[in-house]
Amino acid sequence: MGYIEEFVEVVGQENVRLGADMEQYATDWTGQYHGTPLVVLRPKTTQEASACVKICAREKIAIVPVAGNTGLNGGTKAENAVMISLERMNKIRDIRPDAGIAVVDAGVVLSSLHDAADEHRMVFPLTFGARGSAMIGGVLSTNAGGSNVVRYGSTRGLCLGLEVVLPDGRIMDLMTELRKDNSGYDLRNLMIGAEGTLGLITGAVLRLFPKPRAYATAMIAVRSLDDALRLLNQLQEETGGAVEAFEYMPRRYIEGHLELMDGARAPFDTLYDINILVEVGATATRESTMQADGTVPIVASLEAILGKMLEEETVLDAVIAQSEAQRREMWDRREAAAEIMMPGRWVVNHDIAVPLDKVAAFEEQIKPRLGEIDPEATSITVSHLGDGNVHYTVWPTGNSPDLADRIMEAVEDVALDLGGTFSAEHGIGLSKLNSMKRRKNDVALDIMRAVKQAIDPDNIMNPGKVLPAP
Amino acid sequence: MGYIEEFVEVVGQENVRLGADMEQYATDWTGQYHGTPLVVLRPKTTQEASACVKICAREKIAIVPVAGNTGLNGGTKAENAVMISLERMNKIRDIRPDAGIAVVDAGVVLSSLHDAADEHRMVFPLTFGARGSAMIGGVLSTNAGGSNVVRYGSTRGLCLGLEVVLPDGRIMDLMTELRKDNSGYDLRNLMIGAEGTLGLITGAVLRLFPKPRAYATAMIAVRSLDDALRLLNQLQEETGGAVEAFEYMPRRYIEGHLELMDGARAPFDTLYDINILVEVGATATRESTMQADGTVPIVASLEAILGKMLEEETVLDAVIAQSEAQRREMWDRREAAAEIMMPGRWVVNHDIAVPLDKVAAFEEQIKPRLGEIDPEATSITVSHLGDGNVHYTVWPTGNSPDLADRIMEAVEDVALDLGGTFSAEHGIGLSKLNSMKRRKNDVALDIMRAVKQAIDPDNIMNPGKVLPAP
Repeated sequence: MGYIEEFVEVVGQENVRLGADMEQYATDWTGQYHGTPLVVLRPKTTQEASACVKICAREKIAIVPVAGNTGLNGGTKAENAVMISLERMNKIRDIRPDAGIAVVDAGVVLSSLHDAADEHRMVFPLTFGARGSAMIGGVLSTNAGGSNVVRYGSTRGLCLGLEVVLPDGRIMDLMTELRKDNSGYDLRNLMIGAEGTLGLITGAVLRLFPKPRAYATAMIAVRSLDDALRLLNQLQEETGGAVEAFEYMPRRYIEGHLELMDGARAPFDTLYDINILVEVGATATRESTMQADGTVPIVASLEAILGKMLEEETVLDAVIAQSEAQRREMWDRREAAAEIMMPGRWVVNHDIAVPLDKVAAFEEQIKPRLGEIDPEATSITVSHLGDGNVHYTVWPTGNSPDLADRIMEAVEDVALDLGGTFSAEHGIGLSKLNSMKRRKNDVALDIMRAVKQAIDPDNIMNPGKVLPAP
Repeated sequence: MGYIEEFVEVVGQENVRLGADMEQYATDWTGQYHGTPLVVLRPKTTQEASACVKICAREKIAIVPVAGNTGLNGGTKAENAVMISLERMNKIRDIRPDAGIAVVDAGVVLSSLHDAADEHRMVFPLTFGARGSAMIGGVLSTNAGGSNVVRYGSTRGLCLGLEVVLPDGRIMDLMTELRKDNSGYDLRNLMIGAEGTLGLITGAVLRLFPKPRAYATAMIAVRSLDDALRLLNQLQEETGGAVEAFEYMPRRYIEGHLELMDGARAPFDTLYDINILVEVGATATRESTMQADGTVPIVASLEAILGKMLEEETVLDAVIAQSEAQRREMWDRREAAAEIMMPGRWVVNHDIAVPLDKVAAFEEQIKPRLGEIDPEATSITVSHLGDGNVHYTVWPTGNSPDLADRIMEAVEDVALDLGGTFSAEHGIGLSKLNSMKRRKNDVALDIMRAVKQAIDPDNIMNPGKVLPAP
């Protein structure tokens, strides 16, 4: 019996996809990576996934896990590999609001988890534009970030337990819900962010948080990024760290939004250079309870701070959302980032982070560098300013890999010179392999390779991703 | 030239300790573990530490790192091994309150970091009784917990960057201060909690938090642990998650404190079965600002909740600290735990965690089990109730290792049956090796051994700790 027949026995004929049926998996969201998988398998359970991996291990066939396929770095490109899709493993196994946990299959779509948590007046705080397609397995494998990291941290901080199918097909059960569990090496965090190169994540125990009882959300135009950071610090002090998001959209981004999205509206009558979306979430009763005069303290705090800054002209303009619809419009603008910055032509996208107070310096320094390399290139920035995370997309004038690489190298130069990283929240995949080779210190790379070799000696789990060849 | 002479060249004669000069390192704080190290080295810098490790690697001599030596599991016991003491690497390299970070040598004493942060009105929130001796390197190596985990998480959540001397002596520089940095496998978390078996931690970038502007601290006697958890949940909701500590001391603990500590006072006129130390820390301006009538909102919140619960008789008694001295007395009682629970005779200590609502069940179920094994044994419990973490110390009637192991096995039975872990925050060291062998799943143990073999193929870093022999 050939291995395809064996796969059919495990997952059923309709879940063994071949030929044209593989196309939706073979091409990623950006349209820049087209793979040629051997077959796409769609197991329903961890046991089925394990059985599929065991067959691949025996045959030494490469495996590429795919979840929502919304990654931006080619992490799911499959060449002569079996793709294992998590889409049918989409069960929310348990939600226990009192314990603050959700137990989920790795194929649960992020927005489905949001909805399920909301029914219990809880939140799973990780969020980003692709939440309607991205799945928990991919989110964990890339240690995804997004807009709420300033308050809640990245994915790894939101995960308590993990279930992983190892490269030999064995199931590693690390499904604890405990806040304290020191029993040997931290294999959970080793698997999180490994982009499927050490195993296939099939389940997780995730943290839920009480849903804020009130939000204060605003669009703000400021004179400088330094003023924006002063605003952030004042808000954090006033609210005890309740800032949920602090997002920076420069003028070019606002213009891009207006050009590309039907029905898009500008945040202000004037186009400003520096636009900030800020959201504060009140969980404390005192902050969220409406007062006799109809005001909500958390909103009043934001108004008071903005009023003072408007007077001193550090804030140039401000609109506080007066309804959920207005709040949603502000968020829609920010969450259109992928559409604005990744249309289907040749782009070079960057996902750098620098210390918060160096974002302005990054912008100033990268401009002349790009001008030297490709004077006619265009670019757009958008930034999770609260984390110093900058997404910087360049449209070069030519689509040569060499030109792209020179642009990337320049961006890395500037980011690292400012104490930053070349990879903040999207991961490495294929597109950042050169950066890893150039920038990651050799000792750390050596240890990563040793760990990979130890856990996946036949190099079958998502080979060629994350770790550049020595 | 013998290797001792080489060590002298690296660290200087006065920092190569031999013979009786090794005694303070060779015996741990509990007095239960006596080692016979070959030599104790006291490097001053990461480079010196690296040079020492390189010599050991060449000679294939085992290395046992030692920091404050306040661990409770024998993790620093050295037999035929070179001990590398971090005590001279005690420099706080940098504190940047605006960035919320401290950059430290691994030999910095925890309370020194507390003091240094306090000068900037910041806190490094990790704390426990041994903070005056424990050092950052040990804290990181054991992923220490303590009393503030309910708000700030364990050590790994407080560490952004790490510097590690690997088993071959190379220095691995992971010293980032970025909140987002996804560039390959998470080697930082792999090293944290590895108890020195994968490398020697020599430096770290740690997170600092704004110092609460006001505390509300109280001792509370409650009718049941369920009522205590209701109190915790109400406080979290009212304050938006500002509970810093929620510590449970049963009657036997209070008695132990009165018996053993000079000048100790009981928290109440009556001795109650269930005593809780609760502390709420207000960072938000509105919560911490004294009102016209002299009240502070965060204290008023606590008073209001306690008042209601006193009326309904779920709270039996309560004292709110009216001064820093009163607050300090409450904390001194809790932080005397090590002295109360680990006097210098044969004890079997446990560090389990269970889901929060299972702490009462653990107490009920372990009692008859201990009665069967050793009817005359005595015991004391103290608990970080906010994390479900229970320290349960047993004084058996005999000091046979077999009896101790049977007691441990019974404790594990009960804890795991309740969905808990046998090791919450102290780590494995030597004393929990049997538990690891019995309780950790085989697949995870296999992967841990593979990782150890990959990073330390000659098994020279703290050999025999954490991982039981297959």
